[in-house]
Amino acid sequence: MKINFILFDNFETLDVFGPVEILSRIENADLHYISMEGEAIKSRQNYYIQTEPIFSVIPDGILVIPGGQGTRNLVDNEAFISKLKSICNSAEYVLSVCTGSALLAKTGVLNNRTATSNKKAFEWVKSINRSVNWIEQARWTVDGTYYTSSGVSAGMDMSLGFISDLFGEEKAVQIARDIEYVWNRNKEYDFFNVTIDSITV
Amino acid sequence: MKINFILFDNFETLDVFGPVEILSRIENADLHYISMEGEAIKSRQNYYIQTEPIFSVIPDGILVIPGGQGTRNLVDNEAFISKLKSICNSAEYVLSVCTGSALLAKTGVLNNRTATSNKKAFEWVKSINRSVNWIEQARWTVDGTYYTSSGVSAGMDMSLGFISDLFGEEKAVQIARDIEYVWNRNKEYDFFNVTIDSITV
Repeated sequence: MKINFILFDNFETLDVFGPVEILSRIENADLHYISMEGEAIKSRQNYYIQTEPIFSVIPDGILVIPGGQGTRNLVDNEAFISKLKSICNSAEYVLSVCTGSALLAKTGVLNNRTATSNKKAFEWVKSINRSVNWIEQARWTVDGTYYTSSGVSAGMDMSLGFISDLFGEEKAVQIARDIEYVWNRNKEYDFFNVTIDSITV
Repeated sequence: MKINFILFDNFETLDVFGPVEILSRIENADLHYISMEGEAIKSRQNYYIQTEPIFSVIPDGILVIPGGQGTRNLVDNEAFISKLKSICNSAEYVLSVCTGSALLAKTGVLNNRTATSNKKAFEWVKSINRSVNWIEQARWTVDGTYYTSSGVSAGMDMSLGFISDLFGEEKAVQIARDIEYVWNRNKEYDFFNVTIDSITV
């Protein structure tokens, strides 16, 4: 199964590599790292990763869209948003992490769908497209073939939820064990919602 | 503070990028990705990261050693182990994740120190150096300036523990909240020890 991770300058590290670690464990996973031009892309954490150009990729399979500071400018990049919309429409499943949902919302494909995002950036993300049914309380959301998660680490919980939906919970639990990850498996409940100050994390 | 991540072919993704996400949030963090020759390094998850050559790096500050399939051959690479020992000795702190502790143990710097590793690979890791006091039950261990963690995701818990030790628990909790990560903060207890079949994760 082809899994495409779309990268851009100032993407957030764990938004990408949490899902990479988990989704790579799908049988016959075929991972690709893509960008608009296929250049080396610099993360917010000061490293460069090599990518393939977006036009060379047949975007079936799974598309993963990370968040990060880079999304703040990218939502206004019409060429990027247009291309993103096109590959979303030809993907079998689309997963966004953190403020990646702002990019996804901007394309219009989330209109009248449920979605969530990073709790600290929630007001900004909502402002990008108010036709989306934004769910603040969710750790992650599923609406048809669209999955969206809360901030950074929530992408790992969503990736396990996605695997559970497609391949069964046993497979998801096995992967969590293999990577010694304590899976927060309740997608309805986000520890990091507005009531965060009242809980201990 | 300089933070050096040492990379090698077939390193495990989250062993590196979990700690990267967390340690990058130390004030004035100066992140470097290094390898023996400074070439692009391929992870087990099919991407290349650009690195700096090890000889060009002044290895003070923090050194992070990931695990992964690549460690299986690397423990027998005398040039690598010798160089690793040298930069361990000049680092202020050394953190290893998963089977990265096998590399660290091979240098001898863990002799008569406590350490842990990935639970599935534990017997192999122990066999590399039996002069280490291996603690199977630990999520992570601290012995002087040496930190070692269990498998993959445990590197994130250890990184938060390290920050807690150096900068206070409040800073660690703040970072966990910023990345919406549920920190497993008890280093003595690993959910993924030998009794794993009796628990739900």
